[in-house]
Amino acid sequence: MTDVTLDTIANLAKKRGFVYPASEIYGGLRSSWDYGPLGVELLRNVRQAWWQAMVTGRDDIVGLDSAIIQAAEVWVASGHVDSFTDPLVECTSCNNRFRLDKLEDEHQCPNCGKRDSFTSPKQFNLMFKTFMGPVEDEGSTVFLRPETAQGIFINFANVVRTARMRPPFGIAQIGKSFRNEITPGQFVFRTREFEQMEMEFFVPPAEAEEWYRYWLEERRNWYLSLGMKEENLRLRAHEKDELAHYAAGCSDVDYRFPWGWDELEGIANRTDFDLKAHAERSGQDLRFYDQATDERYYPYVIEPAAGLTRSAFAFLLDAYHEEEVRGETRVVLRLHPRLAPIKVAVLPLSKKPELMEVAQQIADDLRPHWNIEIDVTQSIGRRYRRQDEIGTPYAVTVDFDSLEDQAVTVRDRDTMEQERVPMAGLVDHLTGRFAGLL
Amino acid sequence: MTDVTLDTIANLAKKRGFVYPASEIYGGLRSSWDYGPLGVELLRNVRQAWWQAMVTGRDDIVGLDSAIIQAAEVWVASGHVDSFTDPLVECTSCNNRFRLDKLEDEHQCPNCGKRDSFTSPKQFNLMFKTFMGPVEDEGSTVFLRPETAQGIFINFANVVRTARMRPPFGIAQIGKSFRNEITPGQFVFRTREFEQMEMEFFVPPAEAEEWYRYWLEERRNWYLSLGMKEENLRLRAHEKDELAHYAAGCSDVDYRFPWGWDELEGIANRTDFDLKAHAERSGQDLRFYDQATDERYYPYVIEPAAGLTRSAFAFLLDAYHEEEVRGETRVVLRLHPRLAPIKVAVLPLSKKPELMEVAQQIADDLRPHWNIEIDVTQSIGRRYRRQDEIGTPYAVTVDFDSLEDQAVTVRDRDTMEQERVPMAGLVDHLTGRFAGLL
Repeated sequence: MTDVTLDTIANLAKKRGFVYPASEIYGGLRSSWDYGPLGVELLRNVRQAWWQAMVTGRDDIVGLDSAIIQAAEVWVASGHVDSFTDPLVECTSCNNRFRLDKLEDEHQCPNCGKRDSFTSPKQFNLMFKTFMGPVEDEGSTVFLRPETAQGIFINFANVVRTARMRPPFGIAQIGKSFRNEITPGQFVFRTREFEQMEMEFFVPPAEAEEWYRYWLEERRNWYLSLGMKEENLRLRAHEKDELAHYAAGCSDVDYRFPWGWDELEGIANRTDFDLKAHAERSGQDLRFYDQATDERYYPYVIEPAAGLTRSAFAFLLDAYHEEEVRGETRVVLRLHPRLAPIKVAVLPLSKKPELMEVAQQIADDLRPHWNIEIDVTQSIGRRYRRQDEIGTPYAVTVDFDSLEDQAVTVRDRDTMEQERVPMAGLVDHLTGRFAGLL
Repeated sequence: MTDVTLDTIANLAKKRGFVYPASEIYGGLRSSWDYGPLGVELLRNVRQAWWQAMVTGRDDIVGLDSAIIQAAEVWVASGHVDSFTDPLVECTSCNNRFRLDKLEDEHQCPNCGKRDSFTSPKQFNLMFKTFMGPVEDEGSTVFLRPETAQGIFINFANVVRTARMRPPFGIAQIGKSFRNEITPGQFVFRTREFEQMEMEFFVPPAEAEEWYRYWLEERRNWYLSLGMKEENLRLRAHEKDELAHYAAGCSDVDYRFPWGWDELEGIANRTDFDLKAHAERSGQDLRFYDQATDERYYPYVIEPAAGLTRSAFAFLLDAYHEEEVRGETRVVLRLHPRLAPIKVAVLPLSKKPELMEVAQQIADDLRPHWNIEIDVTQSIGRRYRRQDEIGTPYAVTVDFDSLEDQAVTVRDRDTMEQERVPMAGLVDHLTGRFAGLL
């Protein structure tokens, strides 16, 4: 693999339209990002791959889309109001703020170098708060969700009743979450606004350990199935002192980022903590009633919780490849075809109307099957280079011979091999190449 | 058509798992909703149909996914900080609050009946505000976006540069927006948190009127193409005094809701108001440079801005149908197959292992092609009834004869006609029935 730096991938992402700094024309909003035309397609593809693997491709998991703003009680019951905090200190000399637990030296400011200049630590709650309705007071205070999971727990009984599911079964959700991080950073890895893909799998307590191990393997395999390199992935079990108070076990799927191993996804055995907490606070009976045994019980929950935006970032990093081709450096994103924003590029050799017309006809034929792009700018060499850099698996070139032989050249992103294919058979040809991959 | 009331559709939505009240176990958060297993698939299908029609199915529009929280300057430039307000009055007798412009009688409280009890009106800004970082002051105040459109305008130059688009071209976005409505209501129609599908189409100013009329027709046709009834749709041009200050023209696509005609989507000629406002405030040159003519100009913008959640609601209402069948009322959602959450239901006549095994095999065969559900609960009649109520186009029944003749019964949702189909040809048979519809 090519060792790629954070800057390299951030520059490519910006140059090609994957990711732009949010509010850039106003100087940017620190560590906030907008996804451009290619980025939005990459996110859509990752979402779709996850939803297919977790929901529509299975019998035992259904989807949900709960609101970002819920009643404040939800976050009291879940423990977020009391405990979702970081210890914050401020340097009295330069007024910069830091997370105490992330400081290398608790006595010296990493910004201005002053010693023993920190205020005593304050617990800072990471939830964004806002006010619902016209009055700004405690009664109207609500929070932006810091995780999608709680929206699932509070709908457990609704889903059991209306979708008639019984443990073991899961509820999956994709959506935005918000955490007011003191120190966001590392490009799109840690941002205050981010998108999660979470699934809560409800099981009889006695089966929790078995399902926990099942989901560890299943989730690791998901990344591998989308082409992520095995040597860049690892499963890491949390140490006892890392475990959240509600968790009986937790492992991370880590990716080897440029700054070292870091978390893509956490798989936790959350026990019956959440359902019990919501039952207690709301006064509702959230136990599952098993008709077969006439028993009521709180299921345990196994939760694979993945970051969508950081997964997309890891897929970009993992796909990045540089190689020497005829004395030049070729940059190619070897993205899995399912993830590639554009599946096929259609490149007329020139803008001459007779070639444009053929290219347009080919584009119209391909578009019902795949996301395509017609690219007419610049030299053909630069256009190949662009398609390589954005990970387009195949480029179809229309040249002047095409007008004679009714054939086009299909170029493979990875091998750069070119093959002449009759236009009439192009859809079938590409269908064959994509077989089993989309 | 069947005249359906708001309550009827809200009850069906809740009973079948389309929509639940948000935070219901805590007494609900007024006018906030979670989408259940069927609702989330309906939303996904509407999103996908829009994205296909607006982005991947065209050459001239690209997508974007910008952050919900942007720099506060964005909303100063757009005019939202100053002008996105409603006039709020409070009854000094019962303390209820109302929008002055929505009161039938400006002198009498509609809640307690007291006359001349209102405070003088206060302009209430509809943006949700929150604080970024640990300090809560003016400098850290940011807003949840009240529309996705501004995220597009501030990225205009980024998209032109990286996706190399030139007018006429569009940028499309789907995402959550937030408005702190004083009086939300009518089920999912007017909610404080909602999802939009907006597209900004940038054109040479001289072509603005022509493109405005083009998008009016295009957008109306989109609803018709997904089966919405023509008599329930209308285009309504805004009166001069309804026009926003920045708009040269605006029309609504209205749907005939149970309470009367109301807006699904607005199509506006926003002129060059937004790009100019952001250019002025940011100091960036946001004109388009036309190489061919060596000219710089601000494109005009035609904006079709649709509500995703209210569109989904309208599709549900429009599909609702009651009819008498053998002395019983049959409720059926005649959803277009593209919108139906489940495409095919697989129904084993009983839970006997030999039938379940065949049903599972059929489910495995169908699942790579369509979103399916295996339903094994209750009598076959009640299961048909459930599938009708959730709009599943086809039900495949496995009975004891299936074990002998290797065939199953395919039942059509709309006609209730049943046809015996050999299992080996089932995928082809259903592919034929769905042809051109998905």
